Parts: sequence; C-alpha cells; structure tokens
Amino acid sequence: MANYLELFQIPNSFKFHRGGYIEQGILAYETWGELNADKSNAILILTGLSADSHAARHSQNDTAGWWEYMIGSGKAIDTDQWFVVCASSLGSCKGSTGPCSPNPQTGQPYRFDFPDLTLEDIANSTKLLCESIGIKQLHAMVGPSMGGMSALALLLNHKNYTRHLIHIASGMASPPFSTAIRSLQREAILKDENFNKGFYSTNNWPEEGMKFARKIGMLSYRSATEWRDRFPRSLKQIPEHAFGIEFPVESYLEHHANQFIHKFDPISYLYLSRAMDWFNGESYATAKDKNPLADVTLKSALIVGAHTDLLFPIELQEELFELLNDSGCDSTLTITDSIQGHDAFLVDQTVFSDLVGNYLNQTV
Amino acid sequence: MANYLELFQIPNSFKFHRGGYIEQGILAYETWGELNADKSNAILILTGLSADSHAARHSQNDTAGWWEYMIGSGKAIDTDQWFVVCASSLGSCKGSTGPCSPNPQTGQPYRFDFPDLTLEDIANSTKLLCESIGIKQLHAMVGPSMGGMSALALLLNHKNYTRHLIHIASGMASPPFSTAIRSLQREAILKDENFNKGFYSTNNWPEEGMKFARKIGMLSYRSATEWRDRFPRSLKQIPEHAFGIEFPVESYLEHHANQFIHKFDPISYLYLSRAMDWFNGESYATAKDKNPLADVTLKSALIVGAHTDLLFPIELQEELFELLNDSGCDSTLTITDSIQGHDAFLVDQTVFSDLVGNYLNQTV
Repeated sequence: MANYLELFQIPNSFKFHRGGYIEQGILAYETWGELNADKSNAILILTGLSADSHAARHSQNDTAGWWEYMIGSGKAIDTDQWFVVCASSLGSCKGSTGPCSPNPQTGQPYRFDFPDLTLEDIANSTKLLCESIGIKQLHAMVGPSMGGMSALALLLNHKNYTRHLIHIASGMASPPFSTAIRSLQREAILKDENFNKGFYSTNNWPEEGMKFARKIGMLSYRSATEWRDRFPRSLKQIPEHAFGIEFPVESYLEHHANQFIHKFDPISYLYLSRAMDWFNGESYATAKDKNPLADVTLKSALIVGAHTDLLFPIELQEELFELLNDSGCDSTLTITDSIQGHDAFLVDQTVFSDLVGNYLNQTV
Repeated sequence: MANYLELFQIPNSFKFHRGGYIEQGILAYETWGELNADKSNAILILTGLSADSHAARHSQNDTAGWWEYMIGSGKAIDTDQWFVVCASSLGSCKGSTGPCSPNPQTGQPYRFDFPDLTLEDIANSTKLLCESIGIKQLHAMVGPSMGGMSALALLLNHKNYTRHLIHIASGMASPPFSTAIRSLQREAILKDENFNKGFYSTNNWPEEGMKFARKIGMLSYRSATEWRDRFPRSLKQIPEHAFGIEFPVESYLEHHANQFIHKFDPISYLYLSRAMDWFNGESYATAKDKNPLADVTLKSALIVGAHTDLLFPIELQEELFELLNDSGCDSTLTITDSIQGHDAFLVDQTVFSDLVGNYLNQTV
C-alpha cells in the first residue's frame, strides 16, 4: 500500500445495492487543502474507471496526478480554498477493496465471489468516507466519465448531500454504443486463456486480453478528428511480417495498450466496466415523478460535454440538463469544441480549467 | 461454383500493383439488362469488402441481392435502361481468385503466398473484365464503401474509362480511426489459434476470431443514434453466467457475428481489409498536379455521405468533392441525415434510391 494513501475502514458490513456484502471494506483516498471550521468547503472528485485517488500531487506525494492541471493551489479547483477528497473506487484495485482483495473470511482473493458491484455502491461507500471525515454536506461533487454517473448515483440516493454538481463527459446511462465497446473489452479479457476464470497470477497474467481490451477502449477515448491530424499517412512503417504493425495508428494502439496491461487488475476491470453499463439513472423515476431528479435539492449544476465524444455523446448531457432544469436546479450546459473526444477533460486544459474554475467561483 | 455466376478468365499473368502475379485468375461476375448496340449503357458496381457479385436478383438467380432495392427493372439503377455489371472482387472468396483459391502451380491454396492485394488490383482486374465484355468506356461506376475507393483506384489509373461516378460512403483514403478498427479486426483473426498461420480448414475454423472481428466491425457499421433507438434499456436479459449476455446490444452483436463466421474466408478478409487501409488516392498527386484527380475526364460525379457515418466520415466526401470540382468535373455532394451510419446506403432505401436514380437520369 502506498504510504501517501489514507485508508478509511468502512464500518460494519457494507451491503451492496444488488445484494451481498463485504466485511472490513477499505477505501483508499487522498485529500488536498483544509476542511474549514464549519466543514462547508468540501469538494468530492469521483473518478473514471481506470483512475485512482491520486488526482494531483500533494505534500505526501510529488508524482503528478491524473488531473494535475485541475487541482492545486491557484488552479481551477483551488486547494487554498477547497478541501478536496478523491477515493479509489470501491471494486477498484488501487488500494480500495475489490475483487482482487483478500476476502477476510477465507484469506484468498474474492475474485468472482466479490458481490455484484454497481455505481450505487461506489457512491454509497464514498459518502460513508466523506461522513467519516466530518462532511455533513458537500459543497460540490465533480465527476468526469464514470465519475459523472457515480455522482448521479450519489445524488439520486442522497438527494441533499451536495449543493453543487460538476458533471463532465457523462450521462444518466450508457448508450448502447458505449455498452457495446465495453462488452467487447470484457469479452477480450474473459476469452484470454490466462484469465482462467479469474485464477490468474502475476506470472500468468491475461496480457493479451488486457492489451486487446485496451485497444478496443482506445477507439472511444479520443476522436477520429484528432487521430486524422495526429497520424499522417506518410509515416507508414515497413511491417516486420505480413499483417504486422504498419500504420501509425497501429503503433499508437500497441504502445498505449502495452503500458496498460499490468496497470489494472483484470477482474476489477470487468466489475467496474459492467457497473457502468448497469447504471441507469432513469430507473429512479417514479409513478409520481417521471423525472428521476425531481426531488434533488441541488442549488446549481454545470454539465459539460464535447462534440467529439463518442462514448458519452452530447445528447446525454442535453438530457441531464433538461432533467435538472425541470427539477428547478439552476443548471448550465456547455458543449465544447474540443477535438480530443471523451478524453478532452484530461487534455484540453485551458477550456476545462476555465469552465470548472469559473463555475466554482460563482458558487461561493 | 454457383451456376448463376459468369466466369471471366483473366488473360495471361495478372500482375499486381505492389508486385507478384497470378496465372489463370478468375473473376466471378453477374450482369443485368442488355448492353446496347454502341455499348454505351454500361454501369459497373464496385462492392464493399464483404459483398459479392450478387447485387440483385436476375433471371438465373431469384435470391435477393445485397443491393436489391437499388438495381432492377424500374428501380434507381434501371436494368431496362442500363447494362449493369458487378464482380466479386479479386482476392475475395466468392468465386473470384483469392488467397483461398488453389494456386495452379501447386494445386494447394495460395494462403499467404497470394500476392499483396491492393484496390488497384481490384480496379485493374475489373476493367479487364469490362473490356472483355466489349465495354470501351463505362457510362458510370457506382461504388459504395470499399467500392468507392476501388472506383477511385480505377479512375486514377484509367482516367477516361468512365463518364460518370457515383461515390457513396467512401473517400480518397481510410482515416486512422477506420484503420484502427480494421487493424483490430485483423488482429482478432490472426490471434485465433485455429487460424494457424492460414492453415485452417472447415473443421478447424478460426470461429472465435471471425466472430470477434465481426463484432468489432459492427461498432462502425451503424451509428450510436440508431442503436439508442433500437435497444431500449428495459429489454435487459438475465445472463446465463456472470458477465454473460445481458444487454440488448450484446445479443445483437452475438447474433450477427455468429451469422458471419462461415460467410467469409478469413485470409480473404485480411487481404481485403489491408487493401482498404493501403489505398491512398492522394499518393497519385504529382509535382505538377497536387490534385491527384486533375487529369480525370469525368463528365460528372455524385458524392454521397451520411452525417452518422463513423467509418467514412463526411470530411472525406467533402474532400473528394473539392478535388473533383477543382479538376473541372461537375460534381454534386449530398450528405444525408440517415441515422444508419455507414450502412445507410444498404438500408435507407428511399433516400438512396432517389439520389442515385435522379442523378443517373441527369446523365442521359
């Protein structure tokens, strides 16, 4: 366990949304800034599927985080002003309890004995963490990608736990196109012989499956527009063998997929990926309220999408904007011209810094 | 060999664009309508990757073809008026010579001894076929998808062999996003153990690889918009096992991929897929003419794309339109609102019938 992580032991049994429970569950988390006296300046970051709690560097860890440009002193999420919390998701493999963690009842990894994981479980466990730190209500939740859906899961289950929401490159539910991509990623992992029904080991890792899954995912992270500019046709290589790597985009996929193979646990990946496809904010609609967000007491929300996002296309952000406005929440919808597709929030720094920073300033 | 196919034996050795040759090459083809006395009413259809010569029913075969709604008496490509020719591509596995055909020198299938196939080879062999039928100049070429690039290959190498061009859902070159999808399809086939470096057999077929390749391809054939309407989230199934088929889009991919496994030869698929990625119409530019189509003597062209096409996005059709206009060709660009993505030309019958029919009427 990295010593810069703080560990929250979830009290009692943690009951999962679809049934089942774990004992002695742990969430690994990090914080930036100071919680003020009336505990009103807390911002919770909910992460994408493969991200961890290390969103930015801090006094205990000088390594750049996955959202380094966004979080820090004087940055858009200004840690001089805000107390920022980010946890590795329950079910993940970055210090929080997940399918590859030992089951305290057996001492062996849970593997497929880990309960069915949903984004509601990520939301509920993260809320317990925040409460344990003394946060009675969040100033804001910030959720990009899967984190945006986790934020909605938290909002739908705890309707007044946050005053503001920043929802980025996400939506109320995965569209079938995104589910198809994730389904093929899961299939690639499951069909690797080394996956061995979950009984793989470091020395017998489903490398091919993880690599291929990553390549499939990469089809959806950037955009055709960005790739057209990035990969000139003139850069073709001579392949080492017939049908070997020849096109620039093939080298790119190969390079990035190779880097990913051992960065994430295969079963964790399956659980989190399925959780994204299971999430359906619309299922919270009731006979009384067709709008599942009708009872939410959010003061305001910022919803951001990118025209080039294939994974969470802008229709989803438009839909959420309508639902929140209909619920009486003062919401703002911004669709950016970023060419980086779904990953724009990680890459298009100026645009996203300005959006998040300006919005947070307005919430004070 | 299906007895409704006509067979054209390519005379002499057929030399490939990137080197190598075959002897006794054959193109399987079909025709509709009658060639008129001055042989001026011929329309050549160039096919997509997995299509064959059977574009529509005719007197010898009453089975519906892959473009049944488009071709026939009184239809957009009216066989009462036009003499229509469609061949299975060289390199394909539908009666024309390809990697799975026996090499006359050995009696064994060529497999990877088949010469490197390019769209130029498909174009050149198809032109030889047309000439053998007595067609000195085509009235028009019609090429959807890969066929659009094959048509450009023919045009770039034989600049006055056709008077008109109908170019649908295609472009001057594959964008990197499409190359990435095809690269992953090829990888899925190549990594199937049953593929066995090309030494598979009917009883030992790379079924998993072909199936997975088809699923990956299907990500790009329709559109996220169509899938959103087609697959309601409420239709979820109870999966037979953890991570089994559960979402409607998964059943859809599974069903269609299963149908494809034995419909196409795996090595042929690899060769044709790579040929699409190799094609680069822009490489025909010269120091004298930056516009590779500058010398083309086309009288007119119709270029059609769909806003929802992920595989050949509308930038490609816009680029071709500019190049043709710049070359003095009277060209028309139409971008449809079809929601069916790349497959729109197969599905959005009224829109595409009208476009093709009206255009052909104007060419008379």
